[in-house]
Amino acid sequence: MVNLVQRVEDTWRTCSKSDSSGASNSGCESSKESSRSSTPVLDTDRTDRLRDKMRHRTESGDHWFSLEFFPPRTASGAVNLISRFDRMGSGGPLFIDVTWHPAGDPGSDKETSSMMIASTAVNYCGLESILHLTCCNQTKEKITGYLSKAKRLGLKNIMALRGDPMGADWEEEEAGFNYATDLVKHIRCEFDDYFDICVAGYPTGHPEAESYDEDLRHLKEKVDAGADFIITQLFFRADTFLKFVRDCRAIGITCPILPGIFPIQGYQSLRQLVKLSKLEVPEEIMQVIEPIKDNDAAIRNYGIEQAVSMCRVLLESGEVPGLHFYTLNREVATMEVLRQLGLWIEDPRRTLPWAVSAHPKRKVEDVRPIFWASRPKSYIYRTQDWDDFPNGRWGNSSSPAFGELNDYYLFYLKSKSSKDALLKMWGEELTSEQSVYEVFTSYITAQPNVAGHKVMCLPWNDDPLAPETNLLKDELDKVNRRGVLTINSQPSINGKPSSDPIVGWGPPGGYVFQKAYLEFFTSSENVTALLKVLKKYEPRVNYHIVNVHGQNTTNAHDMQPNAVTWGIFPGREIVQPTVVDPVSFLYWKDEAFALWIEQWAKLYEDESPSRMIIKYIHDNYFLVNLVDNDFPLDNCLWQVIDDMFELLDNPPEEQPAEALRQDCVDAQIW
Amino acid sequence: MVNLVQRVEDTWRTCSKSDSSGASNSGCESSKESSRSSTPVLDTDRTDRLRDKMRHRTESGDHWFSLEFFPPRTASGAVNLISRFDRMGSGGPLFIDVTWHPAGDPGSDKETSSMMIASTAVNYCGLESILHLTCCNQTKEKITGYLSKAKRLGLKNIMALRGDPMGADWEEEEAGFNYATDLVKHIRCEFDDYFDICVAGYPTGHPEAESYDEDLRHLKEKVDAGADFIITQLFFRADTFLKFVRDCRAIGITCPILPGIFPIQGYQSLRQLVKLSKLEVPEEIMQVIEPIKDNDAAIRNYGIEQAVSMCRVLLESGEVPGLHFYTLNREVATMEVLRQLGLWIEDPRRTLPWAVSAHPKRKVEDVRPIFWASRPKSYIYRTQDWDDFPNGRWGNSSSPAFGELNDYYLFYLKSKSSKDALLKMWGEELTSEQSVYEVFTSYITAQPNVAGHKVMCLPWNDDPLAPETNLLKDELDKVNRRGVLTINSQPSINGKPSSDPIVGWGPPGGYVFQKAYLEFFTSSENVTALLKVLKKYEPRVNYHIVNVHGQNTTNAHDMQPNAVTWGIFPGREIVQPTVVDPVSFLYWKDEAFALWIEQWAKLYEDESPSRMIIKYIHDNYFLVNLVDNDFPLDNCLWQVIDDMFELLDNPPEEQPAEALRQDCVDAQIW
Repeated sequence: MVNLVQRVEDTWRTCSKSDSSGASNSGCESSKESSRSSTPVLDTDRTDRLRDKMRHRTESGDHWFSLEFFPPRTASGAVNLISRFDRMGSGGPLFIDVTWHPAGDPGSDKETSSMMIASTAVNYCGLESILHLTCCNQTKEKITGYLSKAKRLGLKNIMALRGDPMGADWEEEEAGFNYATDLVKHIRCEFDDYFDICVAGYPTGHPEAESYDEDLRHLKEKVDAGADFIITQLFFRADTFLKFVRDCRAIGITCPILPGIFPIQGYQSLRQLVKLSKLEVPEEIMQVIEPIKDNDAAIRNYGIEQAVSMCRVLLESGEVPGLHFYTLNREVATMEVLRQLGLWIEDPRRTLPWAVSAHPKRKVEDVRPIFWASRPKSYIYRTQDWDDFPNGRWGNSSSPAFGELNDYYLFYLKSKSSKDALLKMWGEELTSEQSVYEVFTSYITAQPNVAGHKVMCLPWNDDPLAPETNLLKDELDKVNRRGVLTINSQPSINGKPSSDPIVGWGPPGGYVFQKAYLEFFTSSENVTALLKVLKKYEPRVNYHIVNVHGQNTTNAHDMQPNAVTWGIFPGREIVQPTVVDPVSFLYWKDEAFALWIEQWAKLYEDESPSRMIIKYIHDNYFLVNLVDNDFPLDNCLWQVIDDMFELLDNPPEEQPAEALRQDCVDAQIW
Repeated sequence: MVNLVQRVEDTWRTCSKSDSSGASNSGCESSKESSRSSTPVLDTDRTDRLRDKMRHRTESGDHWFSLEFFPPRTASGAVNLISRFDRMGSGGPLFIDVTWHPAGDPGSDKETSSMMIASTAVNYCGLESILHLTCCNQTKEKITGYLSKAKRLGLKNIMALRGDPMGADWEEEEAGFNYATDLVKHIRCEFDDYFDICVAGYPTGHPEAESYDEDLRHLKEKVDAGADFIITQLFFRADTFLKFVRDCRAIGITCPILPGIFPIQGYQSLRQLVKLSKLEVPEEIMQVIEPIKDNDAAIRNYGIEQAVSMCRVLLESGEVPGLHFYTLNREVATMEVLRQLGLWIEDPRRTLPWAVSAHPKRKVEDVRPIFWASRPKSYIYRTQDWDDFPNGRWGNSSSPAFGELNDYYLFYLKSKSSKDALLKMWGEELTSEQSVYEVFTSYITAQPNVAGHKVMCLPWNDDPLAPETNLLKDELDKVNRRGVLTINSQPSINGKPSSDPIVGWGPPGGYVFQKAYLEFFTSSENVTALLKVLKKYEPRVNYHIVNVHGQNTTNAHDMQPNAVTWGIFPGREIVQPTVVDPVSFLYWKDEAFALWIEQWAKLYEDESPSRMIIKYIHDNYFLVNLVDNDFPLDNCLWQVIDDMFELLDNPPEEQPAEALRQDCVDAQIW
């Protein structure tokens, strides 16, 4: 736990002016001139470069880990890899890196390219990322083009490699890229200090180097040319690495050196890797593996055990600030090693209630509309062209336009489930609106649907219920059964500690607050009754009610945003990361209604009854959001819904249906 | 109370798009295009023009009042009038107006000029104000000059008058200003719609008009030329006014017509006014007054009674949205009439915890440093050249420089008390630092000092303790006795309703919060112990400690502001109107230390012991501010001070005084 607390405090670090006693000292004049950041969450961890983060973590003795992935071969592989980024990102890696595959069109816009995968990790998964880049056989123009593109996409870190020469007849070119050093120099020459640069180290010497010492000298050249840190090739004995570090230090290499850890995951993959890297597997390892080479599970267990014990030695040596894992795009072994080492953060503390994007332009972003809470990648995509992000308060932005979302096919926006799986979850055949209600109920309760399948996602929620939403499960179940089809909600929170495991976020010692929120689709009949009921709840409840045609009813003040999540922290301004914003709600409305058709109706044949049912809902239901402003009291939104049902079940005699309809005419709803 | 609630709700009015059901209706397209305000407190009452405020209040049936003053003759009269503005402003007038005295250099920068008095009312007292302007015998250039200056000073409303011709030989000038109509046209021509324009109406006809009807036609011309509303000359019978309104309406004058109310306050002033205005006092009034003409109190009581009963008739007529009072720069009669009518707001609800300036440029201002809480006029003066005001959050501003405060002589910054009164309160002769402590204690406890005089103000506080601070009286008393000389403090508040009579502010239905704050001067010995103690309170307590030379010690994050007052309201973003801002604290420090010398030491002879004592404090004491970040818990700041005294009283044996001093050397304080 010490590490965890340290980490969160780092994230909200005090300025470097602070001396070790926690008191900073400055004369009047210099203080007057000091600049300060423009936003309360603009803290060092969010603005620091990777090399600075490493330095902070190293100085505080807070060990970290990082993860290496290679680009996928197929489009569905890309969807899977992005899901893996999200899952493995939740464990708290300091960074990930994506290898460069010269044969795979690595700099292109293809969804399987190294460039796109790294960009997606940064922009959509919020992961600090390093893009590998090999220079062998490339022109300067081509390399500069790749680097410019990487910069444009928000990538800030490059692993500069020579790469394997294509073919055996490779020769040095004059003024060309012959060694990684040339690439490091080129990056520094063309892009100054923009990129953090990583280079490769070879604990047993590069296979092509004349000698170990010769290779060390090459490494020194790479560092002198401007590299910021070193990641090593894999190795099998802690001593190999520790000797390497000593040798590096001896010749004046002072930058961080991260050991590359390769948990053995199978006999074949080990053989292949060894062949490619021209490494020798130590005899003591081969002796264990050979006898069990056909038992994958046994080998993997051994690999985990071997990696854990080696990592322990490394960490205890005091020479190793962080561990770099060659994941081979697999999760289990690496996660298990990290768990056993205590480096995997099961419940990472959040800087904000939503995952902060790692794109430099978005680093100051500290407020988002609540609507996209379950579709953050879509929000990021639709706002990617914004020049500024709402800086502190949403209202400061001049409500820039949202991009259209017609690109449901984009791999980072696609559902993780196949059409087949979706049909099983959402129904091979729908018979009525009621059968749609049942899908929602199954999702909420995590109970199998009538066909016996668990509903793991909905068009508006690609993941099972959040722990926070789970707190509301019983109420959600009850209202979904009756056609209040909830797609987003949060409970009210009146000052829980910022360290709360479910609703907490931000630095330690603070308090977080929420207003209760509920968002749902429901029929126009329900809306008619609801509007009647809502009059009783003025001004406690704010509402926005809109249908697909944009008929919009609200009691919001002057189109101002309503803060629904905020936090108070020691020595800071108020942070209000989530708002119900009337303007963006009308953009979200377009997306939320379109998802009925794009993700659900299109599963079925044209003109099929199932499709017509979804289409009917799309055309006729309203999207409603409700905020209970009275956060210190019990959430009244369930009472609002109860009152609506009560009114529908027992319409007052003097208020027959026709009169209700008249009220709506008065309210200019129809 | 209905009026009060209505008024506050008006202040935070929903947009005019709202229909009467409270629901606004807009198609998707128009909503997408809608602009919105950039700050959560930017509400209609703060941004509306005077004519719009009138309209809103008229529509909601919420009666208002306004107050007319004339410029003072002397500088001390100006100080008194500004104090009167503050006192009478607290009763909630919709506006005040300041008459134009052609003989008194009315457009000059003299502290007694009409222009300066009106400007001070707007800028320093936060009062919506109308400046009178007479055009008779003036050139267009001169008038345009006055109007430009008024605009530059933040004045937005003009009462356009002809004024009395100088001398009997006045003749119409061609293309000159012959009538108020000419002035109205000129304002509209030169300043378009910038100013709201008021004109005078004469319920019994202008004395120089050929006839009542002729005068009505002139009034119609003035309105047609662009006047927004009418204030009438005084009258003595409700019927006179009501007939006048009917006659105005009959010829097509539709703008608001405000009755000018003159509570009779004395026999001589009545005679003089009647002579000037060429009005006749009705027989029934003269019959009452003549017999008591030497009994001022009796006449004033009659005047109040007469005004109240006439106003009641006016208000009940339904023709009168608001009452305009000719105060003659006196308070008692007008306030009594307003109290009896129920229009005087004893405890006006505050839009923000501090009085909002009425200058158009400052209307969006919604955050201030806490330091100037008791010296708001000084804060306004020192920031008058800022182009932008921190918009929502202090940190958004690029910390513009504060103006120097060398201008203690400015009438709106001067103490209300004379040198003589100050000496009585603060001591004719000081004998020790202790005798200074006693002055602070007397101020806190509201008990007389050793010489038997109540201490009504201190250099940092021109008024007695605020009700909120009174809650802390016992603790403040205790610490001031021992030389913790408090000049600013607030208790912690954990979510009190925004309607709370003592700490509430903002629109109804919200909750307000505060972090406990304490600011004081204290000796360097105390600071040495305090710093020792504060280590125990990290990170709960934030501190800034500075001496006159700018030696500054703080544990603040990265020079970021700490929000210490904030509010959560239905349908709004978070409002955080008060911050402890490290940057502006160093500007405040200059002012706070200078006040020892400027306001206190200078009361005494050069080199006198009294002066030397104050000088010693100025040179050697520290200014300390403390924030308890843990607002939901009991305020720990008193415990901090207790711990400091405890440490001073019982220094631990292993921590002799020299060791304490060493700690401070470590903390780089010395």
